[in-house]
Amino acid sequence: MTHSTHPFDDALVLAPGAPDCYGGHTTPGYWNMVGPYGGITAATLLQAVLRHPLLLGEPLSLTVNYATAVEEGPFSVQATPVRTNRSTQHWMVMAEQINASGDSVVTTTATVVTAARRETWSVSDSPMPAVPGAAQCQHVRLPAGPQWLQRYEMRPITGALPAQWDDSGHTSLTQLWLRDTPARRLDFPSLASMCDVFYPRVWLRRARRVPAGTVSITVYFHAGSALLAQTGSGYLLAQARAQEFRNGFFDQSAQLWNEEGRLLATSHQIVYYKE
Amino acid sequence: MTHSTHPFDDALVLAPGAPDCYGGHTTPGYWNMVGPYGGITAATLLQAVLRHPLLLGEPLSLTVNYATAVEEGPFSVQATPVRTNRSTQHWMVMAEQINASGDSVVTTTATVVTAARRETWSVSDSPMPAVPGAAQCQHVRLPAGPQWLQRYEMRPITGALPAQWDDSGHTSLTQLWLRDTPARRLDFPSLASMCDVFYPRVWLRRARRVPAGTVSITVYFHAGSALLAQTGSGYLLAQARAQEFRNGFFDQSAQLWNEEGRLLATSHQIVYYKE
Repeated sequence: MTHSTHPFDDALVLAPGAPDCYGGHTTPGYWNMVGPYGGITAATLLQAVLRHPLLLGEPLSLTVNYATAVEEGPFSVQATPVRTNRSTQHWMVMAEQINASGDSVVTTTATVVTAARRETWSVSDSPMPAVPGAAQCQHVRLPAGPQWLQRYEMRPITGALPAQWDDSGHTSLTQLWLRDTPARRLDFPSLASMCDVFYPRVWLRRARRVPAGTVSITVYFHAGSALLAQTGSGYLLAQARAQEFRNGFFDQSAQLWNEEGRLLATSHQIVYYKE
Repeated sequence: MTHSTHPFDDALVLAPGAPDCYGGHTTPGYWNMVGPYGGITAATLLQAVLRHPLLLGEPLSLTVNYATAVEEGPFSVQATPVRTNRSTQHWMVMAEQINASGDSVVTTTATVVTAARRETWSVSDSPMPAVPGAAQCQHVRLPAGPQWLQRYEMRPITGALPAQWDDSGHTSLTQLWLRDTPARRLDFPSLASMCDVFYPRVWLRRARRVPAGTVSITVYFHAGSALLAQTGSGYLLAQARAQEFRNGFFDQSAQLWNEEGRLLATSHQIVYYKE
């Protein structure tokens, strides 16, 4: 059997049910260690909003809270537009699964703001850093590891996964060129997913591998659909760093530019770590 | 009649009602132009979580979405713990008001994660910038303007409100020393509120005053209650800047340190602006 759709689109299939409700199913293509890759979960919750018949405008902000690991199997997503203004719309989103005892369990919560954007005075105060082009950076192919890592072509510039876990770390900065594998035209869900692509900053800062997982991620979309279309399936420059590692949680700030140096999204997350 | 409580505590009074539900009332002390100061709304929604009998741990992250202006009068807050894990708890929060037609209207939504934190390896990668001490910076007293501005003692270091609106702006960076007026011991709600204290970055970047308002704010708490207690009613160094102004929305990243240079919170927001 051949597969005619992209694994990303497979993962985002949602069947409409009752009003505001959609049914989905985990897919192997974006599987992580004990559940789906966090980025695909964020993308799926955003997709429920984008599919909603009452949608106004395009994504402006997205916050996703990972309440517990999503298990392999079916899940439901409820996306409710709680307030529609003239040019913005506010959404509450919740993903649930039925557990072994037959109870409905909240796995993920989210809020989304969509907006009808207009052209205004605009300026970017975050120029893309001066880095070698994607073609000059080596494509790191991982022989093993979780499936989702095979879904991204990553070309590290700095801050690649440490080769030795020897407690020698001194920075949390990672920069890499990034695109979908196979190639796919950028859209809002895939941009949201890419914001979560960085391995835990604590691994880099310490050069030590400790248990870690995202608790909450926020994405601000600076690009509209025209800029996404213009970016197409080109590389994105993805940059992330932490500000504070404190008593089991660290933050991460990230920026994603297209090859032309346009800032498409900024993102933040707070991440659990052990030890 | 004398007032024995702090205006901040007045604003945060919540009367328990049905399970998960609290009743509050706007107060004049933190009034802004067409509704309460956004920071006091964020603090109030967080307060509903902190008052909840099922609360686990302390605030870790808070996202507040401003769906519409809160009107003068009563409001209700619903705070629901949708998932409790061993050391984290996930909350969905919603504020509503009854409008003139007698309909319930969602004014604000939020998600909160609370956590029981443990001592771990920790490091700060955001040293407090080298700035003059609070005593060396002039306390800016505003003769008029919205009430909430009277609730904060602000001592700008750089990026004060432009004296002339002459389109001469070139940076979005503001640094100021900050504390409650009257003095008040720092807690999680007041720290959350202080994260929203900055006037719109677009005013500074353009040296032009245009309509602007926060759409969504996220706060990551790096401090636990012990560090807040230690900070007491001392000054905080508050810093904010934008990364991108694009088609009606800009982002803001902020950091708040105490006088000893400990990073207490990092915060992000996406803000609407016109023209």
